[in-house]
Amino acid sequence: MNFCSDNTAGAHPRILEAIAAVNRGAAMPYGNDEITRRVEKKICDVFERECSVFLVGTGTAANALALSVLAPGYGAVFCHPESHINMDECGAPEFFTGGAKLVGVPGAHGRIAEHDLDRAIKAGGIGVVHHVQPTTVSITQATEAGTVYRAADIAAIAGVAHRHGLALHMDGARFANALVHTGSSPADLTWRAGVDALSFGATKNGAFAAEAVVFFDPARAAGFGYRRKRAGQLWSKMRFLAAQFEAYLDGELWLANARHANRLAAELAQGLAAIKGARIEHPVEANEIFVTLPEQVIRGLEADGFSFYRWMDASSTTLRLVTSFETDPAHVATFVASARRHAAAAA
Amino acid sequence: MNFCSDNTAGAHPRILEAIAAVNRGAAMPYGNDEITRRVEKKICDVFERECSVFLVGTGTAANALALSVLAPGYGAVFCHPESHINMDECGAPEFFTGGAKLVGVPGAHGRIAEHDLDRAIKAGGIGVVHHVQPTTVSITQATEAGTVYRAADIAAIAGVAHRHGLALHMDGARFANALVHTGSSPADLTWRAGVDALSFGATKNGAFAAEAVVFFDPARAAGFGYRRKRAGQLWSKMRFLAAQFEAYLDGELWLANARHANRLAAELAQGLAAIKGARIEHPVEANEIFVTLPEQVIRGLEADGFSFYRWMDASSTTLRLVTSFETDPAHVATFVASARRHAAAAA
Amino acid sequence: MNFCSDNTAGAHPRILEAIAAVNRGAAMPYGNDEITRRVEKKICDVFERECSVFLVGTGTAANALALSVLAPGYGAVFCHPESHINMDECGAPEFFTGGAKLVGVPGAHGRIAEHDLDRAIKAGGIGVVHHVQPTTVSITQATEAGTVYRAADIAAIAGVAHRHGLALHMDGARFANALVHTGSSPADLTWRAGVDALSFGATKNGAFAAEAVVFFDPARAAGFGYRRKRAGQLWSKMRFLAAQFEAYLDGELWLANARHANRLAAELAQGLAAIKGARIEHPVEANEIFVTLPEQVIRGLEADGFSFYRWMDASSTTLRLVTSFETDPAHVATFVASARRHAAAAA
Amino acid sequence: MNFCSDNTAGAHPRILEAIAAVNRGAAMPYGNDEITRRVEKKICDVFERECSVFLVGTGTAANALALSVLAPGYGAVFCHPESHINMDECGAPEFFTGGAKLVGVPGAHGRIAEHDLDRAIKAGGIGVVHHVQPTTVSITQATEAGTVYRAADIAAIAGVAHRHGLALHMDGARFANALVHTGSSPADLTWRAGVDALSFGATKNGAFAAEAVVFFDPARAAGFGYRRKRAGQLWSKMRFLAAQFEAYLDGELWLANARHANRLAAELAQGLAAIKGARIEHPVEANEIFVTLPEQVIRGLEADGFSFYRWMDASSTTLRLVTSFETDPAHVATFVASARRHAAAAA
Repeated sequence: MNFCSDNTAGAHPRILEAIAAVNRGAAMPYGNDEITRRVEKKICDVFERECSVFLVGTGTAANALALSVLAPGYGAVFCHPESHINMDECGAPEFFTGGAKLVGVPGAHGRIAEHDLDRAIKAGGIGVVHHVQPTTVSITQATEAGTVYRAADIAAIAGVAHRHGLALHMDGARFANALVHTGSSPADLTWRAGVDALSFGATKNGAFAAEAVVFFDPARAAGFGYRRKRAGQLWSKMRFLAAQFEAYLDGELWLANARHANRLAAELAQGLAAIKGARIEHPVEANEIFVTLPEQVIRGLEADGFSFYRWMDASSTTLRLVTSFETDPAHVATFVASARRHAAAAA
Repeated sequence: MNFCSDNTAGAHPRILEAIAAVNRGAAMPYGNDEITRRVEKKICDVFERECSVFLVGTGTAANALALSVLAPGYGAVFCHPESHINMDECGAPEFFTGGAKLVGVPGAHGRIAEHDLDRAIKAGGIGVVHHVQPTTVSITQATEAGTVYRAADIAAIAGVAHRHGLALHMDGARFANALVHTGSSPADLTWRAGVDALSFGATKNGAFAAEAVVFFDPARAAGFGYRRKRAGQLWSKMRFLAAQFEAYLDGELWLANARHANRLAAELAQGLAAIKGARIEHPVEANEIFVTLPEQVIRGLEADGFSFYRWMDASSTTLRLVTSFETDPAHVATFVASARRHAAAAA
Repeated sequence: MNFCSDNTAGAHPRILEAIAAVNRGAAMPYGNDEITRRVEKKICDVFERECSVFLVGTGTAANALALSVLAPGYGAVFCHPESHINMDECGAPEFFTGGAKLVGVPGAHGRIAEHDLDRAIKAGGIGVVHHVQPTTVSITQATEAGTVYRAADIAAIAGVAHRHGLALHMDGARFANALVHTGSSPADLTWRAGVDALSFGATKNGAFAAEAVVFFDPARAAGFGYRRKRAGQLWSKMRFLAAQFEAYLDGELWLANARHANRLAAELAQGLAAIKGARIEHPVEANEIFVTLPEQVIRGLEADGFSFYRWMDASSTTLRLVTSFETDPAHVATFVASARRHAAAAA
Repeated sequence: MNFCSDNTAGAHPRILEAIAAVNRGAAMPYGNDEITRRVEKKICDVFERECSVFLVGTGTAANALALSVLAPGYGAVFCHPESHINMDECGAPEFFTGGAKLVGVPGAHGRIAEHDLDRAIKAGGIGVVHHVQPTTVSITQATEAGTVYRAADIAAIAGVAHRHGLALHMDGARFANALVHTGSSPADLTWRAGVDALSFGATKNGAFAAEAVVFFDPARAAGFGYRRKRAGQLWSKMRFLAAQFEAYLDGELWLANARHANRLAAELAQGLAAIKGARIEHPVEANEIFVTLPEQVIRGLEADGFSFYRWMDASSTTLRLVTSFETDPAHVATFVASARRHAAAAA
């Protein structure tokens, strides 16, 4: 029973069916096929707007490519210190931008606060030739702490960014999980709140390798097709990427998947919170739980065969637990029961 | 009936079955799963040697990443002017290497000749600080002209490269097609002939997004895992990439697929060669035919609904025709018959 | 007696005097000093237009930095195959642009012809995602063959470039030599003919380390100050760079220097042309002579202690001879006399 | 009277004399001249060791180029958050390394402490594919806070770095000032303490544009000449760079200059420390003083025409005062007297 990551999940059956369904006859390569066009159109519909949409294979590629047009090499990208782009992409944003600097703006529960961002940008030395220039803000939705920015939060951040002339990028690797938590529309949670470009993830929530970069102002996307190609992200048999996304959006599979994962995360958090000595570290708003448990309980869970990460290091007693679209509710119940049993034994 | 490219084909059914088969239960992400390990091992077996193997999603990524460790930013990569890395990757090698220069070495039928390479390297100014430094040679197997390097050809090129201290890369996007043409073993056609790193393609020959970078000397692969990650090529749900490769190699599917494509290409070439006014431009050794036909014949074929490219531009009367693992022999026969009919009508 | 390059010359005494003259008291660093402002203004005056002017230390830096804003990483820069940016900067343009590709457009006597450029751009695949995108043209003035583009030549090239949406850069390492040859004004030979950005050289013609990047449309220079800084080209004690340029332009020293060099080159060419078996390879329009001489004559000149390069390799009987602002007329006469003597002896 | 920076100083007269002295006759360009060879040899003598020495024009270039061989694009460079490479080079290290990440290790008085470095490296995730890899440490000598690392401090830092397999770079923009403070030999303060590469500055201490990158293990310098060239840092008339360095080292001018600057800094600090309400923020060990003064005193000094920076922003009451080789002792005395007068008036 694996709570390590939503990446340990497989693909949703309907997505594999879609893959099989498109495997008929010849299709023009490199995105010049009907399925890709249909998906690009569908994503525009989801966001109620003409967008420039580019499918790519991984979330790291989506983020780094998006940033490569939002930040010049001499730019500064303001982001949470624990953000995926800063911590977990082995320098992909720096590589794709030609050397932009990621500047950490700490904030509680994985979120950047409006005034902290404002202060950081002001301290960044706009116009001073010796300093990398503030050009970009990137936020993660849901955050690495499992929390969510509401539309108003995003609007506040976008306000600061745009007032200083910076673009706003959203790493939406778990966009669906955030969306269903807020109840907002995709448009409200992105461009209507001021987001300029979105990394729209599907991989963690049901696909196996499907992400999209969405520019809400097509003018920003000039030349992006060339960037995708030279980054090795333009699939020749693109229909197999597009089909994943199509099935992901069809019949609101994405939202159903996210609701499932979020609901189980909430149940898991609720079950663990009742344990003596347990502390839920961040509000559980999406599909990640950060919970501190007594060492004995953790060892018991490990002995029972549950997989999860101690966060951020092997000696920590804070666990990160992640649910996904395919997490079995029974596994959640078993996990909570096991934790309670070990807690009782320890008492 | 589409002869535009082997990229217009779908995926082989056994490869989609493999995808479905691995979609059970949780698997550790980012290549830390059993299937990936198994495939890496299997590729070593195929090449009869301990290799460093890295799975990636596209051929452009495989080439550019391989070159990023074989050529420094101040390096020169000698390649055929019409090679994919030079013509069709939108500058990916330059991007990934940090600015290496691709230097064209022309040669008949898409192949680089030993003595031309030697002359080009000598003219490259080794040790002259003003010139990019000859560090790398890259050949394509099968070539962009549909021809094949035999083991002895490769050994001759490797000899020149190594004598001057250059590394030898092989873009094996159509490695299987070349292999079955020569009858050599994978080892004989690569490291035993002096190849240092191979982009081992599966996408064109049955997979939908699966390539591997193979370093025959693991020492060259130091740090490559980080490069793959920061390039956005490390799939989180890697089993879906690995499973493609596993099925590709299982039961020698790859060789059977390539034999099918090559055989139909030979039939197509034979059929067309007999037409009055037709000229086969390059030896047909793999799955590509370059054939010059009378304009009227071409128009007739277009009118009959066949898809193909005029090479290299829209007014050319030379066609590129490509067969694939899933090309229907009946389509080949129909194509030849149609061409003959139009030729007869034109006479 | 050294005819290897105009780089073997020292600095003009008036330029060293200027260096000494500015060495009084404190001056604000990084170009925030009066001398730098004065020079920037003066360069605008020279070109009769509001320009954005950036002083840098070397010609390679000037070219590569200028190209870094005129060509994106996925761009193609059309230039003569023998141009300095393509041959002699060890990949600096590729480095600074993040991987743009330099595409050679051959042409007689080091010049690119309008129709060849047009054909090359058309063949470049504008809008095709697999190809680097034609974005930039770069010409050298005077060329590497010692020839000069007239204003009308430049206008023709600029016409082609702009019609296809490409920017035009001029490598003016020997701009002064070209200018005095044509008799045109600096404005006529640059922006009035369609040049978008100029690398304005002073080093070869009297300074010791002083070049300027001049953007004729200041909008193109957005962010350039940051690029110069991060390239390590913003001198802290900038007055010592600016003072060189000021003295260079003061009292038209630059034009006098160039006239001297050109005049001696013409004399040298005239003297050598009369020798039996000699052939002047390119029109001598600036300060470089390419002359083929009998091997015995060359050996005689070498034995007499003259320094020069055999072009392009050590076994060639074509010499490149370069004059400079400080070439001694007596050396020219001696060289010619020596060549004649050896030619007579050989006869 | 300017205390803004040691960059506001001019060049030492003996350095300008040296420039004039080498301006005789032709010299081979690009460092193939006798003066350059002599200086490279002399720097080896200074460091009592065979080194690889590369002259460049600016300190930013020296640092960024040095780091470009010590850190791969996926590398992490540990440095003080306020270090010049992190704060004041507009991303040059990121540009030259192809995207390495600078990781701040805070420490009192501008210095990195051994155990903080050790902790930071351990937290850096060596071997974890998602994280940029700890490869490099960079320290500044003297630091940006005007303090100095002793040989033992450096050895401790080098010990940590090397134990984890990281290289140690020293930004020696003010190396002379640090050296004379410690009384150590150049060798003791660098390679004998474990420094792998040094940016050896001359510009701030008497030259006008002269820095050297010194590799104490020549093996690390492989390919560096090409990197310097493609960075636009290989001067064609190199003798004018080399001559600065030669005069800088001749007769120990560099040490005398640094002693002068340090002595005046100490006097200045001593004089200001006695003022009521003044606080010296960092030990004054080189030529920079950070002093907090009452706002009224600062305004008085400004009104008296002294130039200096409020640190780090315009509303701060902490001043950075910098002395140089040409600071007039009378100016120091006047400054102190003025400060005292304003302090008395305020009392």
